[in-house]
Amino acid sequence: MPGHHRTYRSFLAETIAIGSELLVGGRSDSNSLFIAELLGSLGIEVRFKSIVGDDRDDIVQVIRTAVRRAGVVVMTGGLGPTVDDCTREAVAAVIGRRLTRRKDALDQITNRLAQWGRVPNKDQLRQARVPAGAEVLPNPVGSAPGFALYWKGAWLIALPGVPTEMQAMMREAVVPLLTTRLVRSVHRPPSPIVRLVFHTWGLPEAEVDAKLRGLVPPRSAIALGLLASPMGVVVSLTAKGGEDSQLIHALQEDVRRRLGDWIFAEGNDSMEAVVGRLLLKDGVTVAVAESCTGGLITHRLTHIPGSSAYVDRGLVCYSNRAKIDLLGVSEDLITTHGAVSREVAAAMARGIRQRAAVAIGLSVTGIAGPGGATETKPVGLVYVGLDGGEGEVLTKEFRFHGDRVAIQQRSSQAALDLLRRWLIKKNQ
Amino acid sequence: MPGHHRTYRSFLAETIAIGSELLVGGRSDSNSLFIAELLGSLGIEVRFKSIVGDDRDDIVQVIRTAVRRAGVVVMTGGLGPTVDDCTREAVAAVIGRRLTRRKDALDQITNRLAQWGRVPNKDQLRQARVPAGAEVLPNPVGSAPGFALYWKGAWLIALPGVPTEMQAMMREAVVPLLTTRLVRSVHRPPSPIVRLVFHTWGLPEAEVDAKLRGLVPPRSAIALGLLASPMGVVVSLTAKGGEDSQLIHALQEDVRRRLGDWIFAEGNDSMEAVVGRLLLKDGVTVAVAESCTGGLITHRLTHIPGSSAYVDRGLVCYSNRAKIDLLGVSEDLITTHGAVSREVAAAMARGIRQRAAVAIGLSVTGIAGPGGATETKPVGLVYVGLDGGEGEVLTKEFRFHGDRVAIQQRSSQAALDLLRRWLIKKNQ
Repeated sequence: MPGHHRTYRSFLAETIAIGSELLVGGRSDSNSLFIAELLGSLGIEVRFKSIVGDDRDDIVQVIRTAVRRAGVVVMTGGLGPTVDDCTREAVAAVIGRRLTRRKDALDQITNRLAQWGRVPNKDQLRQARVPAGAEVLPNPVGSAPGFALYWKGAWLIALPGVPTEMQAMMREAVVPLLTTRLVRSVHRPPSPIVRLVFHTWGLPEAEVDAKLRGLVPPRSAIALGLLASPMGVVVSLTAKGGEDSQLIHALQEDVRRRLGDWIFAEGNDSMEAVVGRLLLKDGVTVAVAESCTGGLITHRLTHIPGSSAYVDRGLVCYSNRAKIDLLGVSEDLITTHGAVSREVAAAMARGIRQRAAVAIGLSVTGIAGPGGATETKPVGLVYVGLDGGEGEVLTKEFRFHGDRVAIQQRSSQAALDLLRRWLIKKNQ
Repeated sequence: MPGHHRTYRSFLAETIAIGSELLVGGRSDSNSLFIAELLGSLGIEVRFKSIVGDDRDDIVQVIRTAVRRAGVVVMTGGLGPTVDDCTREAVAAVIGRRLTRRKDALDQITNRLAQWGRVPNKDQLRQARVPAGAEVLPNPVGSAPGFALYWKGAWLIALPGVPTEMQAMMREAVVPLLTTRLVRSVHRPPSPIVRLVFHTWGLPEAEVDAKLRGLVPPRSAIALGLLASPMGVVVSLTAKGGEDSQLIHALQEDVRRRLGDWIFAEGNDSMEAVVGRLLLKDGVTVAVAESCTGGLITHRLTHIPGSSAYVDRGLVCYSNRAKIDLLGVSEDLITTHGAVSREVAAAMARGIRQRAAVAIGLSVTGIAGPGGATETKPVGLVYVGLDGGEGEVLTKEFRFHGDRVAIQQRSSQAALDLLRRWLIKKNQ
């Protein structure tokens, strides 16, 4: 069935990230995740991702491989004004056409630079050259235009590597183009790829796995994914076919039922955003006293725009003296139980709540390592505390594993989850 | 020159990251950067990176493409115990051999699990199967062994995707194997790829570029790279050939001369580590008062193991009341100049230094956005302050662009750089 096969390849995609800094230079390709999500909403599945340096011959080779297996090839990077930037030349070489300077591309560059009070120099004018026959894709954010062309059954799309520019162009130019020219052009357009994501905290991966056993019926094409990290276990359900998108919503309910309040967020939502909304709804303010997390909890909370409405202050009390001075923790308590103890976590939560005169005090004390362990207190021992002002202070003990960063991440997640559960329970 | 060509391909490498979560699921491949750095030290250059899901046929296709263009192919992921994990099967299919259960692999799995007080189940026993003729690579951290085999002029190496396991196996098994069997086996082994990295802060990319103009002599094979981000501009010099590694060290001195103290760190060093060492050397302690950065500065400082020796406390004073209560900033000052002002930054730095009774107070106040701007104070307006206890307070004004996260990152970098420069100057 060559016809069937051709249609099938049409809706498979490959991303190609171009730039030598992506090969060795401490920068990872994050653009491709965004592209995969947006293409998925059109029913186009990203099956391969390639990364290649600023070498024309290497780029040519990678594009040739991509065209053989994918009907949509999205390239990012290599469209800048310097000689390193050779995506234009590579595409022209692959399809055997020359580069031509295009008036519409030139006007875009000139107009954009004029807004910034500049005129294009010789190098920037190179950016107006695209392979003959290509469509110019406008860049609503930066100066480098992109382009798209259809060749041997594949759409070749070139976008800048700057995330904000790439994202705007995907939304405003690429999605409309692929919708009218690819998706709607076929007799039976593909169903959107539906992907549902559930973020859990507090259950080990094996237990999440056990709770979900038998969830997906045999022979259904829905894929269940589990991904563990210091921030918890992420569960995903992915449906690629039309009938399965009916089933997936039934399974969504089943996942929620099976995992209950171990799920703290779904989709692109986050723990700090969820906690923020709960605080905002209650009209209460929180203050945070941190030790081993070194400001991470406060930083996560204040990451959310508008968080000044419910975050009063955060104190990082690294030294014992800071705990005594700033939170009124008694020196005796620290001497008797140690700074890393349930008692000190409770005193810290109460201290910050009273001193800040807010509704809720949240605290963490622990040993993030690699130093600081004692015979009785290992690296990874962490206490979180919450004082909601009703005379009772909640505390919880954890024994985390992992390196310093992992322990800090787990500790921040543990503290925010304690707050989340307390806010939910209070409202019941 | 087929012989030449063959040797050339021998020292080119490709990484293949395997796992569906890398295609769409919010996880980027960070392993490949580590692998590229380590292979580079052997003179083996990573020229291509591929990412593919848990689909056997797709993996087969990607391995076939890699073998055609690279002499070293390092795969990560897909070695786990579940049916999703099909790297073993894919490699066996590519080379046309069957999988065999190997006693050395089985012993490793059994011994590792015994350490954890467990016995291998049926799924875990699958991990002892490797393609016939492959060498088993021990995993000193986890339970899944890796394997390596030489086929049609290429080394195929399969490692687990868990970063700590992959890193240990690269260091302890793959580097020794490639050193003896590939690098030392040729008449003229390749020179190590030398890559020097300089981290700058405070100069726009165009100015860094201007300062470095004419640095690299024409026709030398040394590549100069510039990479801008909210954390500054990273400059890199990469030499791939033997003669060039002489030249690169002369250029290193030249870069240092041209960029001077705009360079805050080199190599894998970081701003927070540099500042930490300066504080430690002076035996002084810092306390931080943050507003718009929401704890990021304190978090970065305390990220460094041993930082409790020089970080006393960090306060996130989001509300005006917190600034008044905790730092003794006068209400009048805030009313007159606004919370985001040079005067309040100075008062915050002085306040935190005095209240914490430490040598140095560091402060930030600004508008990270997207809300909070006024007619005279735009999003991105940020003041940093430093009080070193000699009656004088340093302050600096910035007008940053970018989104909330970028402004927070730039602000934290600006504050730490002010502290770095002040500590260096004091010691001169």
